[in-house]
Amino acid sequence: MNIPSAFWLVPIASVAALCMAFYFFRSMMSADEGTPRMREIASYVRSGAMSYLKQQYKVVAIVFVVLAILFSFMAYVLKWQNPWVPFAFLTGGLFSGLAGFFGMKTATFASARTANAARKSLDGGLRIAFRSGAVMGLTVVGLGLLDIAGWFFALSFVYHGDHMALITITTTMLTFGMGASTQALFARVGGGIYTKAADVGADIVGKVEADIPEDDPRNPATIADNVGDNVGDVAGMGADLYESYCGSILSTAALGATAFAMSGEMQMKAVIAPMLIAAVGVFLSVFGIYLVRTKEGATMKDLLRSLAVGTNVSALLIAVATFAILYLLGIENWLGLSFSVITGLAAGVIIGQATEYYTSHSYRPTQKISEAGLTGSATVIIKGIGTGMISTCIPVVTIGVAIMLSYLCANGFDMAMSAEALSHGLYGIGIAAVGMLSTLGITLATDAYGPIADNAGGNAEMSELGEEVRHRTDALDALGNTTAATGKGFAIGSAALTALALLASYIEEVKIAMERADITLTNLKGEVITAAQATIPDFMNYFQVNLMNPRVLVGAFIGAMAAFLFCGLTMEAVGRAAQKMVEEVRRQFREIKGILEGKATPDYGSCVEISTRAAQHEMIFPSLLAIAIPIVVGIVLGVAGVLGLLVGGLAGGFTLAVFMANAGGAWDNAKKMVEEGNFGGKGSFAHKATIVGDTVGDPFKDTSGPSLNILIKLMSMVSIVMAGLTIAFS
Amino acid sequence: MNIPSAFWLVPIASVAALCMAFYFFRSMMSADEGTPRMREIASYVRSGAMSYLKQQYKVVAIVFVVLAILFSFMAYVLKWQNPWVPFAFLTGGLFSGLAGFFGMKTATFASARTANAARKSLDGGLRIAFRSGAVMGLTVVGLGLLDIAGWFFALSFVYHGDHMALITITTTMLTFGMGASTQALFARVGGGIYTKAADVGADIVGKVEADIPEDDPRNPATIADNVGDNVGDVAGMGADLYESYCGSILSTAALGATAFAMSGEMQMKAVIAPMLIAAVGVFLSVFGIYLVRTKEGATMKDLLRSLAVGTNVSALLIAVATFAILYLLGIENWLGLSFSVITGLAAGVIIGQATEYYTSHSYRPTQKISEAGLTGSATVIIKGIGTGMISTCIPVVTIGVAIMLSYLCANGFDMAMSAEALSHGLYGIGIAAVGMLSTLGITLATDAYGPIADNAGGNAEMSELGEEVRHRTDALDALGNTTAATGKGFAIGSAALTALALLASYIEEVKIAMERADITLTNLKGEVITAAQATIPDFMNYFQVNLMNPRVLVGAFIGAMAAFLFCGLTMEAVGRAAQKMVEEVRRQFREIKGILEGKATPDYGSCVEISTRAAQHEMIFPSLLAIAIPIVVGIVLGVAGVLGLLVGGLAGGFTLAVFMANAGGAWDNAKKMVEEGNFGGKGSFAHKATIVGDTVGDPFKDTSGPSLNILIKLMSMVSIVMAGLTIAFS
Repeated sequence: MNIPSAFWLVPIASVAALCMAFYFFRSMMSADEGTPRMREIASYVRSGAMSYLKQQYKVVAIVFVVLAILFSFMAYVLKWQNPWVPFAFLTGGLFSGLAGFFGMKTATFASARTANAARKSLDGGLRIAFRSGAVMGLTVVGLGLLDIAGWFFALSFVYHGDHMALITITTTMLTFGMGASTQALFARVGGGIYTKAADVGADIVGKVEADIPEDDPRNPATIADNVGDNVGDVAGMGADLYESYCGSILSTAALGATAFAMSGEMQMKAVIAPMLIAAVGVFLSVFGIYLVRTKEGATMKDLLRSLAVGTNVSALLIAVATFAILYLLGIENWLGLSFSVITGLAAGVIIGQATEYYTSHSYRPTQKISEAGLTGSATVIIKGIGTGMISTCIPVVTIGVAIMLSYLCANGFDMAMSAEALSHGLYGIGIAAVGMLSTLGITLATDAYGPIADNAGGNAEMSELGEEVRHRTDALDALGNTTAATGKGFAIGSAALTALALLASYIEEVKIAMERADITLTNLKGEVITAAQATIPDFMNYFQVNLMNPRVLVGAFIGAMAAFLFCGLTMEAVGRAAQKMVEEVRRQFREIKGILEGKATPDYGSCVEISTRAAQHEMIFPSLLAIAIPIVVGIVLGVAGVLGLLVGGLAGGFTLAVFMANAGGAWDNAKKMVEEGNFGGKGSFAHKATIVGDTVGDPFKDTSGPSLNILIKLMSMVSIVMAGLTIAFS
Repeated sequence: MNIPSAFWLVPIASVAALCMAFYFFRSMMSADEGTPRMREIASYVRSGAMSYLKQQYKVVAIVFVVLAILFSFMAYVLKWQNPWVPFAFLTGGLFSGLAGFFGMKTATFASARTANAARKSLDGGLRIAFRSGAVMGLTVVGLGLLDIAGWFFALSFVYHGDHMALITITTTMLTFGMGASTQALFARVGGGIYTKAADVGADIVGKVEADIPEDDPRNPATIADNVGDNVGDVAGMGADLYESYCGSILSTAALGATAFAMSGEMQMKAVIAPMLIAAVGVFLSVFGIYLVRTKEGATMKDLLRSLAVGTNVSALLIAVATFAILYLLGIENWLGLSFSVITGLAAGVIIGQATEYYTSHSYRPTQKISEAGLTGSATVIIKGIGTGMISTCIPVVTIGVAIMLSYLCANGFDMAMSAEALSHGLYGIGIAAVGMLSTLGITLATDAYGPIADNAGGNAEMSELGEEVRHRTDALDALGNTTAATGKGFAIGSAALTALALLASYIEEVKIAMERADITLTNLKGEVITAAQATIPDFMNYFQVNLMNPRVLVGAFIGAMAAFLFCGLTMEAVGRAAQKMVEEVRRQFREIKGILEGKATPDYGSCVEISTRAAQHEMIFPSLLAIAIPIVVGIVLGVAGVLGLLVGGLAGGFTLAVFMANAGGAWDNAKKMVEEGNFGGKGSFAHKATIVGDTVGDPFKDTSGPSLNILIKLMSMVSIVMAGLTIAFS
């Protein structure tokens, strides 16, 4: 197949990203790791994190082997899928895992170095932490583009000929999205349970009962807590965003292959357009990373502005570059599509801003939660839940507007919903998601920076580096909380758009499965046609995917419920593990004499052990459930039920995810606000009340909420891969 | 129009229900109200409740006048609706308000009498409380059937002739459902905020800070708390269930009119069938009420069994009677439809049982929440939220199965989804909702009994009636908590089925609006037809109400978000009001010397004032929002967007409502379990922790959760009434 030369930008960008990541890694490694005590603590955390990750990968490997065998059976024996599916699935999982692994390795090397640099200056600390975050950001985009370019190149040798070739190639590549999703789900759920069990346990006994500060070395759970930041917030997030990034590009490519199936060479252009935007985004991200600098003696505001300059300039440049890319590529309606991309970028920025408004204590909502601390923990919880629920409004409306606008820009404001307008519009929605994620290299850098700074603070506290250093790391940490909130907004927003694009890909996959099974259908004109000839309206009518079909309605109910059930299971898992952790910490305080006086060393290992076991044990059921639900719904309720499930899961899951992330973030910062001396300050009644809020918020924002992003996409991915099964049963 | 003579059973049942209600009321009133102190307290609560209700009705009256003027404009000037709509709307609101008012009046008279009867025996207390609850149950069904029979009778004089007459009559009657919904929403939201502001405030200062028992007369918020039980749990619930009851009957009648439009006299039979089932249900409810008796010295288990005998026998008898009713009526497929009714009944029972499992401390989930109290309030909150989320699974799956089964039973297991199969199936779903609510006379009696017993306990405590009496009222109260949980399951389940039926009614209303505006459409065969000739598949295709239409998807997103936003606003309202209450109670303890020693009387009035103002002030915005959202979505996104909105709101709102109700119930009982002496008992660390859970759960289960039931239905009702507007704009 004739691949346009512009495509080569994709592997080049991939290699460039990986080289830059390696360069940043080396430059971080060359910094001094500090005092022997600092090195010691860092090595505890590092070895804890690595040993956990190894165990997690063992469990995940079993799941992957089982699923790969199943897919091989479906591909080679039942012929429901093409022979590449099992391999694509495996590489997706492998690369997603690698992205998390490299990110985490960097983070565990960077924390002590950040703390050590902060001994000299705030600027030095920021530089090391942020550059280390950039390693993660660039590794994710580099590996993502590598996997995409490699498979696209390889499959284009295998399949060629008519317009069906590109459809087959792009839908096959989607299955590596399923591999990435599966890996990401385990990483987010396992890592999320690990980190929050430790964090909640450490906070309850340490901060509330024993009245010792966070990360105090006397707290037996403190090492586990720091390990958790790495396995949950770094490795989990890396796998998650790897998946979003690839998912958005792949589903858009698949939509392009269908939308432009009849437009000759335009089809190829539509397929590679999202890849090119992502590739150019890599270079602009690197440019943005270099813009992040601070002067000596920078204030918190300067720091924030410095990061904002980097991300905003990248975003602005990619917006401009998109016009050029699409124009030079010569794609039909390049102007409209460029506006679709901008819609996605703008939606990401707005959601990020709204997230900041609802979770930063510079604004009223979080301030009110702090104030509620004066009347106790119950009002803190009530206000936090209220705020989180209200905060769903702006992101949902923004996503709604982005969906409509990107749809309409892409099809020339054709509201008539002809089959063509529909497929072009859906491609527009997909490319908006790509736009939102195009500068992931830098947005993820600001995001991964957070846990590194957090750990640097932990290291400083445990190494007893003194007030001033701790102040600096606190400033870096606070900055990280804000960027983490913004980053979560991005992750959720892009997940919603990607899932929407995947919905359309599901329909294509069903059509392919029908072709394979030689099932014909009757179109809207009453003619008997092959599945490939069916337009989306034909398809919708044939499968009666309308809102009065009880199967669609039941599917939608189950979809919304699945999001709640999944959150409930992960919340319970954290609760159970945290209770064990509390009991262990209490036991150590009781039985090991002298811990609280600093005369005896606590047994950090037993707490690491509790978190590890809990995470291993508790991640299995919810993850398998996420895979099982779409399969069961497909068998029982058919294609109409699956589409209902995905839409219900998307609408319910997106809203629930925003609620949980924002409520959690707001509680965290409400506590910080009290700690800064408001409403009585540290140790006051209001402080104890807001600590309860923060503790409840931990699994909200770091376990259940972010896992929902993946749940939404994974359910679509599973449906896509299992389309053959659904067709066989209906 | 020829009304079959069987119809007269409806007004007869209505009058019978109202007479029985009056009889039970008289017999309750003849009981002794107790000591002067008891009378005094009861009169405080009564006058507080009445004065609040008067104020609330004033605000609601303004809203009704404005909406009635708007509807009159739409009906008489724009001709978008028929001339009866404004009047139907007003009677619905009036009757719904009356149902709440009578129920509350009875409850405020009954509490002291229940406490007084409990001075002699448990049995006496149960009898008075339950019979008073029955007044409420029978008033609701009596007024509901009166309104239905009256309008049906009146409209059948106005409209006659072809099959369109019955469609017009039944869709016009639906507008009185909107009146009832609007009234119910204000009652639930206003009452819910009132009661929980007082309850949360009283608990935080009284139980947690001052360490005095619940309902202690030294607590300044205690009268407001007891008033709240009446205005929220009694008046609010009465209005809510009046609306569900009428809504299910009316929407089913409307579905019957459409489904059997071409079947001659079968159409009339289909319209009156749900009314007849409800009418027979009234008699069987009265029979069930008489079965509730207890012997002297009955245990808690006996009490529960006694109530269960009443409700279960009624349910069983209506199941049997349905076969007879539908057979004698001579309706097509009477056997299948009877099974649809049974599906609804069974779903109600299963949801009730599941609710009990997740919220009663006889079972593991709630026991685990109690146990989490040992590690503090944060783990109690985490476990409670987890349990609540997990508890959504069984109700959603049950409703899903009920939808599929009632649909299939009603159309002879025709999965092909022809236009006819679809409309008959939807009628089946509607009649399942009627089945679920047919024995509302008795289920509501067991439900309204709860707050009466609760208030009796409050009266006993404040009148210092002594240990033994307080023990008896505690037993009655605990029983009330269980029945309240079951009742909530019923209310939510029926709301979901009713809302589904309303979805179909919306389509009919749009068709009528199109007829009125002379808009034709193209059917699936490509022919131009009038709207009245369009089948559901034609309609769905014409408006592109499929899951790939971005307007449907955006609508679904907004629907799910609306449920969260609405909950968030009501949670915040309770939080704000509770904070004010806490400050006021603290102020009184500080400034009025001798309150805590029992030497000075607190200023109950100021707390009543705070709750009243908060409720008045805070109920407006969320309620208007619920009315505004479907109107705005209709204008911007058209018919497809509205259907997306309703489905998203239904799936998301139902799940969220179950979550909130169950989490709240579980926290309440987890606290009760500790108070019974487990995990340290009263005053222990675990007790304080579970009190925080209970306090957070208060607005979950009594403000936000139950209001969602109405939100779901009100959004459908508003869409139905505003169909003309949507059509004018699209």
